[in-house]
Amino acid sequence: MSVHYERIALIGLGLIASSMHWAIKRGNLGAHVVGYARSAETRDVAREIGLCDTVVDSLAEVVRNADLVVLAMPIGAMEDVARNIAPHLKPGATVTDVGSVKRAVIEAVAPHIPDGVHFIPGHPLAGTEHSGPRSGFAELFDNRWCLLVPDESTDPDALGRLTEFWEALGAHVDVMDPDHHDLVLAVTSHAPHLIAYTMVGVADDLRRVTDSEVIKYSAAGFRDFTRIAASDPTMWRDVFLTNKDATLEILGRFTEELFALQRAIRTGDGEHLFDYFTRTRAIRRGIIEAGQDTAAPDFGRGGSKG
Amino acid sequence: MSVHYERIALIGLGLIASSMHWAIKRGNLGAHVVGYARSAETRDVAREIGLCDTVVDSLAEVVRNADLVVLAMPIGAMEDVARNIAPHLKPGATVTDVGSVKRAVIEAVAPHIPDGVHFIPGHPLAGTEHSGPRSGFAELFDNRWCLLVPDESTDPDALGRLTEFWEALGAHVDVMDPDHHDLVLAVTSHAPHLIAYTMVGVADDLRRVTDSEVIKYSAAGFRDFTRIAASDPTMWRDVFLTNKDATLEILGRFTEELFALQRAIRTGDGEHLFDYFTRTRAIRRGIIEAGQDTAAPDFGRGGSKG
Repeated sequence: MSVHYERIALIGLGLIASSMHWAIKRGNLGAHVVGYARSAETRDVAREIGLCDTVVDSLAEVVRNADLVVLAMPIGAMEDVARNIAPHLKPGATVTDVGSVKRAVIEAVAPHIPDGVHFIPGHPLAGTEHSGPRSGFAELFDNRWCLLVPDESTDPDALGRLTEFWEALGAHVDVMDPDHHDLVLAVTSHAPHLIAYTMVGVADDLRRVTDSEVIKYSAAGFRDFTRIAASDPTMWRDVFLTNKDATLEILGRFTEELFALQRAIRTGDGEHLFDYFTRTRAIRRGIIEAGQDTAAPDFGRGGSKG
Repeated sequence: MSVHYERIALIGLGLIASSMHWAIKRGNLGAHVVGYARSAETRDVAREIGLCDTVVDSLAEVVRNADLVVLAMPIGAMEDVARNIAPHLKPGATVTDVGSVKRAVIEAVAPHIPDGVHFIPGHPLAGTEHSGPRSGFAELFDNRWCLLVPDESTDPDALGRLTEFWEALGAHVDVMDPDHHDLVLAVTSHAPHLIAYTMVGVADDLRRVTDSEVIKYSAAGFRDFTRIAASDPTMWRDVFLTNKDATLEILGRFTEELFALQRAIRTGDGEHLFDYFTRTRAIRRGIIEAGQDTAAPDFGRGGSKG
């Protein structure tokens, strides 16, 4: 079946785009993949490691004749890129993105998309704490969710084609409303990342516990936080600036609950603590049952983008 | 060299004690391991799976003639156990523990230890989110730190022997002062665990994001939190109740930093966010360089006890 795209343009050659390239090749989709990154150094690395069939040096070139255009740069750069590619987009092409926030991407990109080009925002829920053109691998999307955010005007054929494309990369696809997407991600990804960043920053600031002690003895919970907090700073800055309201709301709730637990510690209310911890344990079991992680002692993936 | 213990008593047959048993057997230490757990069900499981050479039904029996006695139950139960084993301890034996807090354990246990018995508190920095007699495995302590907390009266030979024992289980051993231990662990383990518990609780409470959505789309940062927050509720209740001051101090610092980041989000101060995230990323690199984790995309261990 030849529903796939013949020519695919990847703009921004970081973890997600490079993984898409390797997954396209693994899946034998038959597409010619053209890549572009703003940084000449990134383009050189891509050429060196065989990332993309062709690496070009301008936005106009990368989108020329492309059937699918993937915006895979930090959200803050998307409006500018959308404005610059708009005159060069092929009629009937599909433009999508992989940004972690959807309302802000729609506001930045949609106004620039010409008539006759399909814009279908997307967000693959997959990642590691690594970034850059060397960080990608073909398995990144396997059994992960990719959320697509069409609206009532979206062409059903274009949506079906993009859905099959992501499935061919190994992902499961769901459709979601942009505002609900941004709230769900604030809970499952954005607030947790800010919290992990904060905790790692606190450890770094402390004077009585040395850096080397923090590093040496971090086998426990803290190590998981440092992994989350090692994710790409530019990407995450843009996530928080563009999903401001939902993230701040969840953080407000978080602070409220944290104060209640702190009070329980201070007053020695062991029952409150025990009940709370028992409840959270059940959520973990649900995640394992839903197949999004494994109960094996030696599991683990570098899941930190979101 | 026969510096090891001939008879080892494990009291409390959860993750740590069961892993110690398997590591003792893997290391061919030649010791006879006797086990006891308060719950008859746990003792039955231990007998069924061959955990411990002998499983006995009372505290008096388990410590009889033991050269090493390991207290491996939640901290809140230690004083009672110490009081009950005291009359039955072999002269010259060593009593140690594996609790995550050291000052409180010393206060609970030391007064009951008779003259002629060595009490050397300990804390292996290793764990998973699993608990119970079936959760142990021989590799748990490999390349992990075990912190021992002797005082000025500790017999050097007894300390040397316990050190060699933990090294034979795969661990590296460091010696630390109890109050410093409790502060370091508050930073690297106790506060991160409370924060993870809180975030998971917030997600569970939200009404507009369903439980199934939280579970389904948790591939991102949240999944790491749920793993931490799945740890044993009794153990963690006791950790927070017994390391109250250090944990509350770190949480106070955490809240202060979190508020500063929230303000940066609210005011759109991208530079503050970017600088903060860049700094935390460097800490992660330090941990990888220190050999406490790996940079590979598919790493991961279940490190959540502490």
